[in-house]
Amino acid sequence: MRKVNIAFIGIGTVGGGSINIIRKHHDDYMRHHGIDLNIAAVHCRTFQKAVDLGVEELYVERADEIINNPDIDIVVELVGGTTAAKKYVLGALRAGKHVVTANKALMATSGEELFDAARQHDVSISFGGSVAGGIPIIGPLKHSLAANEITTIMGIVNGTTNYMLTKMGEEGLDYSEVLKDAQRKGFAEANPSADVEGEDAAAKIAILASIAFNCRVQLDDVHTEGITRISPVDLEYAKEMGYAIKLLAIAHRTDLGVEVRVHPAMVPMSHQLASVNGVYNAVYLEGDAVGKCMFFGEGAGAGPTGSAVVGDIIEIAKKLADGVTEFRGCTCTDQLPIVSLSSLNAQYYIRIPVLDRSGVFAEMAKIFAREDISIKSVVQRGGDGRTTDLVVITHEANEKAVQAAISDMMLTETIVSEPQLIRLVG
Amino acid sequence: MRKVNIAFIGIGTVGGGSINIIRKHHDDYMRHHGIDLNIAAVHCRTFQKAVDLGVEELYVERADEIINNPDIDIVVELVGGTTAAKKYVLGALRAGKHVVTANKALMATSGEELFDAARQHDVSISFGGSVAGGIPIIGPLKHSLAANEITTIMGIVNGTTNYMLTKMGEEGLDYSEVLKDAQRKGFAEANPSADVEGEDAAAKIAILASIAFNCRVQLDDVHTEGITRISPVDLEYAKEMGYAIKLLAIAHRTDLGVEVRVHPAMVPMSHQLASVNGVYNAVYLEGDAVGKCMFFGEGAGAGPTGSAVVGDIIEIAKKLADGVTEFRGCTCTDQLPIVSLSSLNAQYYIRIPVLDRSGVFAEMAKIFAREDISIKSVVQRGGDGRTTDLVVITHEANEKAVQAAISDMMLTETIVSEPQLIRLVG
Repeated sequence: MRKVNIAFIGIGTVGGGSINIIRKHHDDYMRHHGIDLNIAAVHCRTFQKAVDLGVEELYVERADEIINNPDIDIVVELVGGTTAAKKYVLGALRAGKHVVTANKALMATSGEELFDAARQHDVSISFGGSVAGGIPIIGPLKHSLAANEITTIMGIVNGTTNYMLTKMGEEGLDYSEVLKDAQRKGFAEANPSADVEGEDAAAKIAILASIAFNCRVQLDDVHTEGITRISPVDLEYAKEMGYAIKLLAIAHRTDLGVEVRVHPAMVPMSHQLASVNGVYNAVYLEGDAVGKCMFFGEGAGAGPTGSAVVGDIIEIAKKLADGVTEFRGCTCTDQLPIVSLSSLNAQYYIRIPVLDRSGVFAEMAKIFAREDISIKSVVQRGGDGRTTDLVVITHEANEKAVQAAISDMMLTETIVSEPQLIRLVG
Repeated sequence: MRKVNIAFIGIGTVGGGSINIIRKHHDDYMRHHGIDLNIAAVHCRTFQKAVDLGVEELYVERADEIINNPDIDIVVELVGGTTAAKKYVLGALRAGKHVVTANKALMATSGEELFDAARQHDVSISFGGSVAGGIPIIGPLKHSLAANEITTIMGIVNGTTNYMLTKMGEEGLDYSEVLKDAQRKGFAEANPSADVEGEDAAAKIAILASIAFNCRVQLDDVHTEGITRISPVDLEYAKEMGYAIKLLAIAHRTDLGVEVRVHPAMVPMSHQLASVNGVYNAVYLEGDAVGKCMFFGEGAGAGPTGSAVVGDIIEIAKKLADGVTEFRGCTCTDQLPIVSLSSLNAQYYIRIPVLDRSGVFAEMAKIFAREDISIKSVVQRGGDGRTTDLVVITHEANEKAVQAAISDMMLTETIVSEPQLIRLVG
């Protein structure tokens, strides 16, 4: 039976979860896969964590002691961030060790460099836990769905914002109230910006798009908008019109290249993604052979992300047990241009806060007409007698034209505050 | 570049779909996977099919010419059934060829024998297309989710019956009317029994349970009931109570062993499976680490099933290109007993057609009480003045007790016809 030595750098929520899964199922993996997973060393900044997990005898004070230990086969990096983590991952790869990581930010910013290092040293880097927790998506894209040209991959990949939007919609709470609630419950961090500004989702869609389209998409390529400007009235109006508002991470392969973006979107209630609520995640895709598929599950936490991390560990261990020496690396064999958001054509929800007086609608309609934007519906909603909301749904229109129209509106004397723009998807 | 020679036995809907996918993406697979997939031979009973597909020059008259051809690396069996197909698959494995099949009936009845043959000849047998068309589920169970102990796997895995139940629910049509409609549209076969009697779903859940629980589950182990007795009034009553009726294929791992069954089930509208309509399929699972997951997509057809078949071909071809000589085979390393349905505890919907006269409910209530079945709700529905339906929802009760109660009811003079029993799930 092949004994595979594993070392963990970072033993927080996901690291601890992964260690517990391996301890619980060690004998099962022997029977099912013919592998003997041996946790050989752990490193983290606080020794107490190792004590709490009952692995204090495996604790090493410096990550170097793992990277320089010739007996370690697989290094599991779960410290997060892109500075120390990158040093550890590169160090491990250069020392000829396989790496498993759940670090989306690292993969979305330094993927190419890491894959190059892995290739040079005949080892592999796996990152199944970096997107959508335990939901199998990276594995299926690389294997079961490999026959397809994927044209669309999109999803709800940030549980924090999905919890917040669900709560805002159900209880009519303000953004700031719901953020406090999410922080109290441990769903949002003290500094929530990576979640609420969309950066976490952007890293994830960069990874998914890279694999789905076989071309490198990096964090900087993703047009990113968060949920901080979404107001309860938007959720209310959306619901009345038969839509849910979701923070979507979206990547399309078009004739022009790859279009990749993260922003709040209005999704028809009949779409599978509309009913994905709370901290759940879902990834939807369209392939030229398979058609429409969706994958749904818990997107974070010790169990779900641990499931993906240990799944990656088992895959590598099986290969080592089978004597495999060739490890396939980066799947980015094609080069496709990144398409700028300004060429997007979509339908738009535009809520325009205006003074409540006659002629206002005519004034706004003139601006839409000037930019060649065709209006599908417009209603006047809410207001206090002095101000009111014009709620417009456009027919398909060009992003650049819509942005120009909004700039023009801002110059009028009837506008009260910046219009709210939410793209329709699905 | 490794050239991999593939031969198709059976070039109907799925075979033709698979060939078209390979022809469309041949060069993509070269770039992405470093493999040169070469369709080297095709066999089917009617030469005309080869002509229609434009592969007449690859046609061979006898399957033997494929099996005995030393140049063929992978044989793709897509004839269906368990007689000729078994001969072809065993012949190919014994001749040292890898086999890809979408044949659920064959895998669910002869899996062990085929895996033994594959092991003896150092080749592999893949069957990703045998369950749920193109939805990746067998791959994820074997790989991404390998860290988990799976406790439940269940789903809607037969598109024909799901289309029929959806249509019956939406339009109030009778079983026989909706069957004719499905046959007209090509969703049901002239002899629909494998679909409507649940046998197709039973083969699929046998395969899924085998992989999910690492133990052999065969077609005969599955308690199977079809949809032929479902009436529009059941769908109507279900809807009023907040349930959908679905033909579910269900497997649970319990303390007693493996419980595996196919039958119509009432699923709460809030459950993810309730909104899977028409010809779509979905597989839901629970793992001890990953929690709840669901996979959704098209369950049949040239594209979706072809996607799974070609996915399997690509996996084998990549291994051949990488010089892999060890192929992992059967995952059934454990032995678990099959638990009989009589030990099931569940909630039940029981519709009892009775004479519409006083004292009837008391008579039935006495029978439930005698069998220790606690009633959650009962309403009297519909009827023509002479007869009426008592619609009972039980608290959790034992299957054996419920069956005994129904037998007792059949002996009363007030019963009009056999009660309808539908188990609640989810």
